[in-house]
Amino acid sequence: MTTGADQQEGKRRGRRPAGADTKTALVEAARAVFTEQGYEGATVRAIARQAGVDPAMVNHWFGGKEGLFAQAVLQLPVDPAVIVTELMSGDIETIGERIVRRFLTVWDSTGGGQFAALVRSVASHEMAVTGLRDIFLKQIFIRVADKTGADNAMFRATLVASQLIGMGMVRYVARFEPLASNDIDTLVAAVGPTLQRYFTGTIT
Amino acid sequence: MTTGADQQEGKRRGRRPAGADTKTALVEAARAVFTEQGYEGATVRAIARQAGVDPAMVNHWFGGKEGLFAQAVLQLPVDPAVIVTELMSGDIETIGERIVRRFLTVWDSTGGGQFAALVRSVASHEMAVTGLRDIFLKQIFIRVADKTGADNAMFRATLVASQLIGMGMVRYVARFEPLASNDIDTLVAAVGPTLQRYFTGTIT
Repeated sequence: MTTGADQQEGKRRGRRPAGADTKTALVEAARAVFTEQGYEGATVRAIARQAGVDPAMVNHWFGGKEGLFAQAVLQLPVDPAVIVTELMSGDIETIGERIVRRFLTVWDSTGGGQFAALVRSVASHEMAVTGLRDIFLKQIFIRVADKTGADNAMFRATLVASQLIGMGMVRYVARFEPLASNDIDTLVAAVGPTLQRYFTGTIT
Repeated sequence: MTTGADQQEGKRRGRRPAGADTKTALVEAARAVFTEQGYEGATVRAIARQAGVDPAMVNHWFGGKEGLFAQAVLQLPVDPAVIVTELMSGDIETIGERIVRRFLTVWDSTGGGQFAALVRSVASHEMAVTGLRDIFLKQIFIRVADKTGADNAMFRATLVASQLIGMGMVRYVARFEPLASNDIDTLVAAVGPTLQRYFTGTIT
């Protein structure tokens, strides 16, 4: 970690502090290696080598390959690891509402343009799809669905993803009213029960 | 309408039959005029003038401006007017299941690539968004929601759109399994009740 004092010191010396240098180098190397090798082909070791830093720095700064991809390539506004921790705590009977609220809070504050950019990359690049699947579907949704003890956890996870992606499409990309302007509480009341059923209800 | 005999006759004379000529001319003119004027700015009169045909031919071949846009620009695999008629008949208590089944039947048979192309155009072009809103949200969903007599028909319509669009994104664009390969009956059972609630249930 770098402190404000470190950064001041770095500026006085006319260079950036080493921590930020490492992080920037990793982001740049990640973009190159992911583009060249694809999401599954790219390794933490190869990215670190190209950045000229220790592979342990990937875990230190990004929590692993998924986090590096999320920040460097997808430029997601959130750290998937933080989301997973947050959703895993709390009552499973309110998971539907909590996911809707978290999704909207994150993307509303980021601005819809970034969600639209993400959709464009998903529609155009196989790599973005694979990365998102690993980051959100495997890391988040499936662990949530597994926690419920319900059968068909993977199917439930993809159902949850479908409603969240669609809500994002209507609110941020197509901007169909009134959903595009509804306040978050209204959408939590309307869409929360859908996700709750997908996680813990009868779906067959 | 042109008959097979007409078409044979046309070929013998070394030209296409007049009906197909008119339709092709309208499609080409529509693409040009919609691109130039936008969805709302383009008029049936202007498109017919550019095509050199009677404006009544737009209604004859495409059922109006929305249908022409749907076929010429969005290249939708279905005629919105047919869908509206179909959904309006039948029990309102089964509308959720019927919409899911119809949506999947249409796009499964078309192939997912066409849905992906539609999403790309929505994410890139304001015109596609406006056209889709008029074609699907206004023409189909709102009329369905109105028929239920429920309040918040417009909000309900956008909720329905969100789940359908998201299901299409996961099945045809991201291709997350198992939803991408699930049979239609499985998805009707899982997603039908969501749409039914959006149309006729409590959403606040």
